[in-house]
Amino acid sequence: MKIYDWSTGPYPARVRIALAEKNLASRVRFETVNLYKGEHKTPAFLAKNYSGTLPVLELDDGTFIAECTAITEYLDALDGTPTLTGRTPREKGLIHMMSKRAELELLDAISVYFHHATPGLGPDVEIYQNAEWGLRQRDKAVRGMRYFDSVLRGQPFVAGETFSMADITVIGGLIFAGLVKVPVPAECEALLAWYARMQERPSVKHRVTMSEPSV
Amino acid sequence: MKIYDWSTGPYPARVRIALAEKNLASRVRFETVNLYKGEHKTPAFLAKNYSGTLPVLELDDGTFIAECTAITEYLDALDGTPTLTGRTPREKGLIHMMSKRAELELLDAISVYFHHATPGLGPDVEIYQNAEWGLRQRDKAVRGMRYFDSVLRGQPFVAGETFSMADITVIGGLIFAGLVKVPVPAECEALLAWYARMQERPSVKHRVTMSEPSV
Repeated sequence: MKIYDWSTGPYPARVRIALAEKNLASRVRFETVNLYKGEHKTPAFLAKNYSGTLPVLELDDGTFIAECTAITEYLDALDGTPTLTGRTPREKGLIHMMSKRAELELLDAISVYFHHATPGLGPDVEIYQNAEWGLRQRDKAVRGMRYFDSVLRGQPFVAGETFSMADITVIGGLIFAGLVKVPVPAECEALLAWYARMQERPSVKHRVTMSEPSV
Repeated sequence: MKIYDWSTGPYPARVRIALAEKNLASRVRFETVNLYKGEHKTPAFLAKNYSGTLPVLELDDGTFIAECTAITEYLDALDGTPTLTGRTPREKGLIHMMSKRAELELLDAISVYFHHATPGLGPDVEIYQNAEWGLRQRDKAVRGMRYFDSVLRGQPFVAGETFSMADITVIGGLIFAGLVKVPVPAECEALLAWYARMQERPSVKHRVTMSEPSV
């Protein structure tokens, strides 16, 4: 398998964490797509992923799978023992709900803020910006942090009692928030404590260096 | 099970279609939430779904599952025989990718156009609008229609050889596009032919009346 990737990106981080959680990193080659050069918006890349986003998984038969949730579904199903996307109907429903909510209310909101209300990837890549929309999305993301804090006051993980894809999506959101300097409010103690725990997980801690050849 | 619903809404349509495809409609009670009165933005409803959107599934144990993809995962897994969300890793990956792409590039874009660049649900509900953003999302949705047309020139269904959740999401997009009068370009012949076929499926055809008591 091959992954089109940007090693420090928050969305690529989601798939890197999933790969490590599933012990699949050694089966993947990473190919860097330079976001700051707009390589994800070239016709050659858009033919792989119409939406022009990273990461993209390419299977050995040439099939492209884009979207973190879809890639995670694929990776989690490979060994027949899903640990990230749920086993029972109720688990599947709750994990998908919370992961989607983490996109809507946190990660994607921070991404829109970055691309629309900051210099983003630079003037050659950010050919249209809507600063007012971007700033509103930043505020939405901070509200989202407060929401996830309230969730984590009642349970150890975002979708319940076990680590899942939903935790990975919130981690992606807080990685992106850190990069663009939108801090978690100090009173979100449960969210901050959960994030400290998550950063100690090997899959999260070593996500950037996982693509470097081991010596 | 209970579904918080708006019978003619494009997002509720996705779950109604999934229920009919899975022969589960008779196990569900529908409770109308009046969007035009903003009932989905009241504190009581936000406690059920933080994002304030329809539909929401309430299980008999009181668990709330929001987000169409999550509800569809739940419903599709109930009988142990998934027919909408994929069986193999590759099917799961492709269906989730195409369903997410149909949200990003079509359905959600039309929704943003509706809420931001038209009167939407009226001045009492649409308390903030960004018309420029809304109009750009309309243009994005029309590009999305051309993309799905190109996909359907090569295969009978959105994610491949069989009907899936990805078809349902594109159907939701075209239902919404019809409501807000954003027509499919006439040259999108494959998309239009596919949509005509989809509208003949009983699950799609009878989706609005499925909640009416049979006499």
